[in-house]
Order: sequence, then C-alpha cells, then structure tokens
Amino acid sequence: MIDERNTDMSALKDLLAGMDRRLSILEERVDTELTEIKDQLPANRAAIVLFSGDLDRVLAAFIIATGAASMGMETSLFFTFWGLSAVRERRELEGKSLSERMMALMTPGNSLGLTPSKMAFFGAGAVMLRQMMAEKDVSSLEELIALAKDLGVRFTACEMSMDVMGIKAEELNADCAVGGVASFLGDALGAKLSLFI
Amino acid sequence: MIDERNTDMSALKDLLAGMDRRLSILEERVDTELTEIKDQLPANRAAIVLFSGDLDRVLAAFIIATGAASMGMETSLFFTFWGLSAVRERRELEGKSLSERMMALMTPGNSLGLTPSKMAFFGAGAVMLRQMMAEKDVSSLEELIALAKDLGVRFTACEMSMDVMGIKAEELNADCAVGGVASFLGDALGAKLSLFI
Amino acid sequence: MIDERNTDMSALKDLLAGMDRRLSILEERVDTELTEIKDQLPANRAAIVLFSGDLDRVLAAFIIATGAASMGMETSLFFTFWGLSAVRERRELEGKSLSERMMALMTPGNSLGLTPSKMAFFGAGAVMLRQMMAEKDVSSLEELIALAKDLGVRFTACEMSMDVMGIKAEELNADCAVGGVASFLGDALGAKLSLFI
Repeated sequence: MIDERNTDMSALKDLLAGMDRRLSILEERVDTELTEIKDQLPANRAAIVLFSGDLDRVLAAFIIATGAASMGMETSLFFTFWGLSAVRERRELEGKSLSERMMALMTPGNSLGLTPSKMAFFGAGAVMLRQMMAEKDVSSLEELIALAKDLGVRFTACEMSMDVMGIKAEELNADCAVGGVASFLGDALGAKLSLFI
Repeated sequence: MIDERNTDMSALKDLLAGMDRRLSILEERVDTELTEIKDQLPANRAAIVLFSGDLDRVLAAFIIATGAASMGMETSLFFTFWGLSAVRERRELEGKSLSERMMALMTPGNSLGLTPSKMAFFGAGAVMLRQMMAEKDVSSLEELIALAKDLGVRFTACEMSMDVMGIKAEELNADCAVGGVASFLGDALGAKLSLFI
Repeated sequence: MIDERNTDMSALKDLLAGMDRRLSILEERVDTELTEIKDQLPANRAAIVLFSGDLDRVLAAFIIATGAASMGMETSLFFTFWGLSAVRERRELEGKSLSERMMALMTPGNSLGLTPSKMAFFGAGAVMLRQMMAEKDVSSLEELIALAKDLGVRFTACEMSMDVMGIKAEELNADCAVGGVASFLGDALGAKLSLFI
C-alpha cells in the first residue's frame, strides 16, 4: 500500500523538477535570443555617401554629419566621385596619365574651388553663396570640415573612384582613410541613418 | 536524529525559494530589456530631406511621401536649400538685402515655377512634363502637396537655409513649421526610411 | 485541530501553483513579444531608388547594389524617371504620342547612351569616363548590370514613370519587373539600407 504523504511529496518533487527545467529553458532562451536581437538593432551610427561635388550639397552633407555627431551618433562620411573634391587639399599633375591630368584640371583642387549646383551661370555662385552664409554667421565649409573632424566624424575616400580619377592619397586631407564600397556598407548597414548626397 | 520528512519538506522549500528568486530575476530582466529593445526598434516613420528644387525630384519626393503616409507611416518632409521652393507660396522683395533679393529673383516664387533637372534647355520642360502627367491622369504637384497635407505629412522648412537665402516664414505654405537640422535628425534617426532627395 | 504537516504541504502546493502561473505567463509573453520584436528588426535587405540617369550616378547605384548583394543582402533597385534609361534596351517610337516620341528621342535608348552629370560639355564625358574605368580594370556599367542580375538583385521599373514618359515594358531589360511606389516602399521600409540616387 502506498503512503499518501510520500506520494504527495514525490509528486511535488516531480512538479518542481518540471518547473526547474522550464525555467532553465526560458532563461537560456532569453539569454540567446535577446543577444541575437540586440545585435540586429539599428546601431547609433549615421553613414553618409558624399557623391556630389556641388558646394551646396557638400554643405548639406557636412551640416547633417556634424549635427548627427553632436547628437552622439558615430558618424562617417564616404567620399566618392565628385565628392572627393571636398577632402582634396592640393592638385598634383606629375606622374599622371593624360586623362588623369585632364580630370585633375576639370575638378577643383580643394574645397575652396567647389561651385554650387545652381547659380553657377556667371561663375559668381560660389562667392555669392559663401558671402550670404558669412553675413548670417553660418560656419563656412572649411569650418564645418574642421568641426566634423573635432567631433570625431570618420572620413573615408572611395578607393575605386580615386583609382579611376587618378587621385592620389597625398592629395587628400591627411585625416581621410581610403576604403572600398564594403567599408561604406559596413558603416551603413544597420545604421540609424544612411543617406546618399 | 533528524526527521526525514521534515528535511525533505525544508529542502523542497529551499528549492522553491531558489526558483522563486530566479523567476523574479527573469521577469524583471524581460521587463527591462524588452522595454529597452522596443525603444531602439525602427519606428513607423519615414523622413525625407528635400534639398532639390528640380520639378522631377520634388515630384518623386511627394510621391514617396504620400505613398509612405498612405501605408500608415508617420511621414515628414524637411525642405532645405532649393527644396524650399516647393513650399513657397509667394515672393517678397521688401526688407531684403541686395543678395537676398537676387536670390529671390533667381529662385521660383512658388511650386508652379519649378523646372525639371533635364529638358530645361528650351524652357518648355516643365510645361511638357506637367502636360504628360495630366494626359496620364497622374496628380499634379499641387494636388500631391494638398494630398500630403491631408494624409498628415509633416512639413518643416530648414531654418538655416531660410536665413541664408533670406526667405521669410510668411513666404512659405502656412502648414510648414520651421526647424533646424536637429529637427530632421529627430525624425530620421531610427525611422524605417530616410532619404535625401 | 489542523495537521501542521498537511498545512505545509498544501501551502507548498499553492506556492508551486502560483509559480507555475507566473512561469506560464512569462513563457507566453517571451513567445509573443520576441516574435513581435523580430518582425520589427531591420531586415537583411538593401533598397535603392535610381532616379538619376547620369552615367556616374547609375554606376554608383550599381556598385553599391552589387556590393550589398555580395554581402548577402536581399537587394533591390527601383528605376524611376531618368533612371529607367539604365534598364532600357531599345527605343520604340511606333504607337506613341508626339510628346512620348519627343521624350523617347531626348532620353538614351540604352545604357550605352548615358552621359555623366559633369564633363558633358563637349560630348566626350561618357567616352572619357568609360575609358578611364577600363584602364583601371573597373567593370563597365554593362558588366555591373549583368553582375547584379547574377547576384540576384531584383529590378523593378516604376509603373507611373513608364506611363508618364510613354516607356513600354518591351523596351526594358527582360528581367525588370514593373511596380508602383508601394513596391519600393515594401522593400525599403525596415530594410537595413535605403538610398535615393
């Protein structure tokens, strides 16, 4: 004959063991899945491709980049095609092929040579835009570039564009790294903000 | 001598107390971490910077914005630089400096004055594009602007651009708020969609 | 008089039943909320609107798209307005209205007719850019288009633009689907990357 109390006791122990297993499974699941989920949340990053070399668009890119960096975002600017002119500091012609020299002469040697997308018709567009910005105490492009560096915005120049256009690393801002499209995608995929300007 | 049954009972109580602690910890963790995670999920928002004042790009921005709003996204348009012309309703010259007046005369006084990025060579581009849209029963830009408002798309004009270009709030659409880059970033960071047009 | 042991036993059973309820609630909650959260995580997708028909911007779009696809992203390109020229393969004039025929003659009949946004002043820009790319062994646009298809990048042509510009599906690349803005938004909302080029 079975002792009722013992049966109760052993049934209780079984119940407890069952709950212990469920709890362990749940703890393990919460651990694993929350870690996986956190890895896939948008990161506190902002990544901007600057393709354009138009003064107005370059200004927009730096205003957004410095804004994002001031809000605590890990911010990166990827300079490609005409956008490379924004981080160019000098123009070299030596050791370049004919088409590379032509390209060098057709693109600005530094940020001061950039012209806006509109108002360029009598060559005075850049002067007028820069003067209007100065009148309203808005930072100049060069001040915005310096501010971006101070705020830790990462600069990367597109290797393929540099290669195609014949731009050498020595011609660019010393704080500018060189990288491929994978470098941009590494920053942009899963960032909270990514823009093509 | 120890009573075996009592020992069993007290061991069971200890086990139960241990599991109760683990369960409380897990409940607390799930509460805290899920709340944190939900705060970092992309929000049901779409944020578009409209930088361009080209009729074709402005149309693209409003088509995407009204599309996103119809799909239940909280949608915002941030008008900056040439894009301000899309929400301009009249042109004022009084009380403006020489360069502000020049800028006012060089930019369209309202959305009807916008021209496309291509086909502008004989001035007929805007007429032709608007006519082709009407022939195919596609909403005009003015209808899209009205639709965007009806769908609750939020309009913000870039304060800095207005200041630099000398555009006054009275010249803009009455439903357009005025805000800085932080206002755009507040909408765009963590939105499900952010575009620079 | 109450049997103390029985009381203990029944109290234990109540405790156990209480914990069982809490555990079931937590299991259910973790199930439901984790599923909801996972649905809202950014998906392994990249969605690009190609609005521009400038050779340089089209190249940038295909370089980013093939890069994202190689990194395992489900990648889609949505061709709209001038960007339709990138997937055009021939130009038809028959059965089109006057303005549709004018539009057809003013836009390139295929990707080989695209010109860059800069350097177009003496018509030699496209030749020069393509030659510089070939010299540096960078894939041509046509190779990038083929690579994109091989990597499974999805092509969608904007139905409204096709309609407005009078472009027929037969004029486009056979692998290009036709869809509206909702199709782009379906890809872009919640993607890890979305760009307007």
